[in-house]
Amino acid sequence: MTTALHETAEAQACCAPLVAAPISPADADALARTLKALADPARLRLLSLVAAHDGGEACVCDLTDPVGLSQPTVSHHLKVLVDAGLLTRDKRGVWAYYALVPDTLDSVAAALGTQLRS
Amino acid sequence: MTTALHETAEAQACCAPLVAAPISPADADALARTLKALADPARLRLLSLVAAHDGGEACVCDLTDPVGLSQPTVSHHLKVLVDAGLLTRDKRGVWAYYALVPDTLDSVAAALGTQLRS
Repeated sequence: MTTALHETAEAQACCAPLVAAPISPADADALARTLKALADPARLRLLSLVAAHDGGEACVCDLTDPVGLSQPTVSHHLKVLVDAGLLTRDKRGVWAYYALVPDTLDSVAAALGTQLRS
Repeated sequence: MTTALHETAEAQACCAPLVAAPISPADADALARTLKALADPARLRLLSLVAAHDGGEACVCDLTDPVGLSQPTVSHHLKVLVDAGLLTRDKRGVWAYYALVPDTLDSVAAALGTQLRS
């Protein structure tokens, strides 16, 4: 299960820097899909809360109060983030625990940034 | 006119790194608005084409053929990018010329990236 999720995360890695050369239609589609998952205030807050949580992972039970949304709504947003390869989901006992996939965020940042790193 | 557009661009600059500490609701709203403008394959291709164009600026006339969309559709996407502070628009004679606002892309990249720069 965890392996399958990591494979999803890898599949999202994209793209060459946007400003270095014209982006291909396929890369533009892939990058836009990940950006759509990110382009929601509640999902940005959830990503940020998961990253800042003790041990770098959090369950839905940790997240509903801070964002002020119902558990089904939070679960929906977390699923979008998992499907986009931005979070992993690990079911342990009653709860599922979510953790950040830093590589996916970093690949988006690298595709958008105009200052190439040395 | 150009001054007003630059003010729009500055107003979009946002935010502290997402993974460093929980993002505020106001910053999440601002960042999500800019990400929504970016989260479209045609707009990503247009941004990339403008950045790669001779002299770093392009008119609608330069962009319709490479993206394979009609002039009104391209103009609509360019307006979304200007409103989000990602492009400036400078009317000269018959055509308007669009140029990248690197600071806006860099502020989004800095907000998303997990590897803080030294």
